[in-house]
Amino acid sequence: MRRFISHKTINLISQTTTSSISSSSPSPNSPSLSPNSPLTSLLRFFSTLHPSSPDSMASDYSATPITMDNINPKVLKCEYAVRGEIVSIAQTLQQNLKDNPGSHPFDEILYCNIGNPQSLAQQPITFFREVLALCDHPSILDKSETQGLFSADAIERAFQILEQIPGRATGAYSHSQGIKGLRDTIASGMKARDGFPADPNDLFLTDGASPAVHMMMQLLIRSENDGILCPIPQYPLYSASIALHGGTLVPYYLDEQTGWGLEISELEHQLKTAKSKGIDVRALVVINPGNPTGQVLGEANQREIVEFCKKEGLVLLADEVYQENVYVPDKKFHSFKKISRSMGYGETDISLVSFQSVSKGFYGECGKRGGYMEVTGFSPEVREQIYKLASVNLCSNISGQILASLIMSPPKHGFIQVGDESYESFSAEKEAILSSLARRAKTLEDALNSLEGVTCNRAEGAMYLFPCINLPDKAIKAAEEAKTAPDAFYAKHLLNATGIVVVPGSGFRQVPGTWHFRCTILPQEEKIPAIVSRLTEFHKKFMDEFRG
Amino acid sequence: MRRFISHKTINLISQTTTSSISSSSPSPNSPSLSPNSPLTSLLRFFSTLHPSSPDSMASDYSATPITMDNINPKVLKCEYAVRGEIVSIAQTLQQNLKDNPGSHPFDEILYCNIGNPQSLAQQPITFFREVLALCDHPSILDKSETQGLFSADAIERAFQILEQIPGRATGAYSHSQGIKGLRDTIASGMKARDGFPADPNDLFLTDGASPAVHMMMQLLIRSENDGILCPIPQYPLYSASIALHGGTLVPYYLDEQTGWGLEISELEHQLKTAKSKGIDVRALVVINPGNPTGQVLGEANQREIVEFCKKEGLVLLADEVYQENVYVPDKKFHSFKKISRSMGYGETDISLVSFQSVSKGFYGECGKRGGYMEVTGFSPEVREQIYKLASVNLCSNISGQILASLIMSPPKHGFIQVGDESYESFSAEKEAILSSLARRAKTLEDALNSLEGVTCNRAEGAMYLFPCINLPDKAIKAAEEAKTAPDAFYAKHLLNATGIVVVPGSGFRQVPGTWHFRCTILPQEEKIPAIVSRLTEFHKKFMDEFRG
Repeated sequence: MRRFISHKTINLISQTTTSSISSSSPSPNSPSLSPNSPLTSLLRFFSTLHPSSPDSMASDYSATPITMDNINPKVLKCEYAVRGEIVSIAQTLQQNLKDNPGSHPFDEILYCNIGNPQSLAQQPITFFREVLALCDHPSILDKSETQGLFSADAIERAFQILEQIPGRATGAYSHSQGIKGLRDTIASGMKARDGFPADPNDLFLTDGASPAVHMMMQLLIRSENDGILCPIPQYPLYSASIALHGGTLVPYYLDEQTGWGLEISELEHQLKTAKSKGIDVRALVVINPGNPTGQVLGEANQREIVEFCKKEGLVLLADEVYQENVYVPDKKFHSFKKISRSMGYGETDISLVSFQSVSKGFYGECGKRGGYMEVTGFSPEVREQIYKLASVNLCSNISGQILASLIMSPPKHGFIQVGDESYESFSAEKEAILSSLARRAKTLEDALNSLEGVTCNRAEGAMYLFPCINLPDKAIKAAEEAKTAPDAFYAKHLLNATGIVVVPGSGFRQVPGTWHFRCTILPQEEKIPAIVSRLTEFHKKFMDEFRG
Repeated sequence: MRRFISHKTINLISQTTTSSISSSSPSPNSPSLSPNSPLTSLLRFFSTLHPSSPDSMASDYSATPITMDNINPKVLKCEYAVRGEIVSIAQTLQQNLKDNPGSHPFDEILYCNIGNPQSLAQQPITFFREVLALCDHPSILDKSETQGLFSADAIERAFQILEQIPGRATGAYSHSQGIKGLRDTIASGMKARDGFPADPNDLFLTDGASPAVHMMMQLLIRSENDGILCPIPQYPLYSASIALHGGTLVPYYLDEQTGWGLEISELEHQLKTAKSKGIDVRALVVINPGNPTGQVLGEANQREIVEFCKKEGLVLLADEVYQENVYVPDKKFHSFKKISRSMGYGETDISLVSFQSVSKGFYGECGKRGGYMEVTGFSPEVREQIYKLASVNLCSNISGQILASLIMSPPKHGFIQVGDESYESFSAEKEAILSSLARRAKTLEDALNSLEGVTCNRAEGAMYLFPCINLPDKAIKAAEEAKTAPDAFYAKHLLNATGIVVVPGSGFRQVPGTWHFRCTILPQEEKIPAIVSRLTEFHKKFMDEFRG
């Protein structure tokens, strides 16, 4: 009988640092990450900073069958910078601060790396949470105390929703596409938004938008010869999902000079290049409003994009999760469904998938994992295959489904009849969040543009700024010596000096030779001035040090 | 400008029938579904029953790029019978009954096809729902009315949970493995269950157990040369996931004669056969308690299984989602973790993944999509890759995470100090559900065994019976003529005569030449006598008709 070997606690996160590098070794034809890519260098750099802990080194796993050499190489190839190495370092610093206050020149870590509003103290929308709580515990709906605790329209809405759920069973698996009554509500909301009908049978409710993206990639990608056109810079879910499903990311570059413009000539050029390499390009990903770039597409541009997809026989995968996040008066969100229908393209003319999420907008309910995709322009036979994929996982979580219906049918103003009781407070909460986000975006944009060598496009929408940093040669050389990408080198210095966490542009890809970082606009408004001054002070020192 | 073609409403579900067949055409070397498999025949049979609706046939999708010929063939290969064709027929019948009452010889459809307790009127556990509602809307926690509506320990528990969530933000993305404090709670519950410690860093919280299974398949399967040993009959999530990830299902047959016994000699035989075909077998799936077979493994048998995995270098994937569902006094659930640790195997000796879910047990919270896996015996480097896979989807839903913690730490009895206020009512709810399930299982088992040509093993655990039907030659011939599997032929007749929905054994696979169906024990107890008499009457008529 062997002796029981007690399991050493392993700090998984701090070790994420080491693995992806020594072992990542992507295959030579890897389209997503070459051994010399900035990301690989970045990872290599961090690996030198965080050696494995002695504890884990002491454990000998040689008797276990699964090693880095025999796992699925597609998993190795996949990267996700938003939760990558720099965040691990930040978490270590945060622990340091907790264990040893005063050990760093700042007293808190400011997470500007991820669009996670409620983690930075944004409060949930009251009406939405009231309805969710009542649906979770319907037996209090008839109690008198409930009237004192919940708004009347939240109680009414909970009753309505329960009526839409077969057997009022919020604890049952639903239809694999989501509860039909909730899909009806969402479809009505989409019709009100677009002026064109939406069919509830076209909606697939999912645990956030990510599983919907995976489902489409799974459907479309057969081999590495299948390509997906993705914007660069891009949200790394796309590169990760394409890598996991074994396809090829075909990049198209957004034009930073024209406010991250999406040029059709660039799409045509990249499509032609990919085709010449034998790649069968199957779909075009468009993120509008943009992530990480924050631009909002103009209507004319959207029409060109639809026309391009129609002409080239591409599925249009429209990431529209930031549709409520538009901060400038000269821009407006238009769904690609509305654009294509207004061009006269109907169901059988164009294949269009639109992704939406409860995680963004003014609600920012990331933890609820609600979302959906609207699938149009696929034959019934192909759609049944999508349905089958959905059914293998049974259904998405019901609270997320309810929330998805709520964001598309919030409390209503009473124009003719009496409005919903919560309308005023709901509107006030919504307005306060969105106007504050707009102010924060502008303040940070201005601050970034005032820095030496930094240019930053407007955050017209979404939750991010993506400034370009023109780094001095000396900094680039120092980064090279540290075997890291220059923007990762900058981000690391920024973190160590200020506690501000941003994601290096290399995590999103960028025009080679340019350097960026992504910074969310989400820290509480009262913290923005301190962030600006910390950032400004750091940047000046950094430039002074490396100006040469 | 093209004219807008209004989108014809398509009944997705009733059409699932047609697609998978004409186009499924699995490749000749498909390990999971051959063109002549019973499942394929079954699908083909149903396709003749449900022609496409005229509406959808009228739509011409020839201008859209995605066709059945150019989607990922792995998607075509994947099948999931639990939500397959027979359920579509049942839904059509249900609509018929609604539109035209009295049109069938029964007045309701009895869904015995899926383990979805709350869809069949099982009520949620009050304490769990109280805590979930309070965590969804924490601002009522301090209100006086709340004391009247919620139990004191639910309020206290909600406060505790909120303290465990950074910033009390139930709407924020959590750590990709799940909220650390909740993982601590689950780990404590596992330790109390097993008598061996569990490390919260080994836990990955997921939206139900299905995504966890997919994650492991994604990690382990590199190509069709990688094999996963699965029990036959099996829960079709496994065959579906293996097909989607492009691997090979290596079957091992459970021995129906010994109560679905798991024989090591059979494992050895199948492993050897697979190896001789060049298959690299990577893992062994064990479902305990069994689905669809309902057996509970004995401790000695579990030790043999652990020893087999250790000897052969296989990852043990232990589906333990029915761990609370054991109905017979002579059997007891033991986790494979407990078994392997009690054998002296520690963290670095054996690779073991255990899956758990909030969907089963006495709670049956399928719609909440909570679950987790405990990952032990993987090197830190490999585990970081699993963490990366989890991080691409950010995190699982927080309500599901909270519920996962609650099922592993329910209200406590006060042995020495005062117990939790909800303990008595919680225990009564739990006991009522489990004892009723045990009675239902026994009644149905006895009824099935009393039928001519039917033998049914005990439902020692889980939620299913899986009787063997010895069909008369005439019925088998009639099924052949109808181009369907004999058990699907039987299930279809049963549905049309009684409204009872079961899943043909072919959906789970079975020893060739034997025929079964899976029937849940979940209909409300007061409906069981009617089910028994309907089933008995139907079976007699069926046998009279086909006895020859």
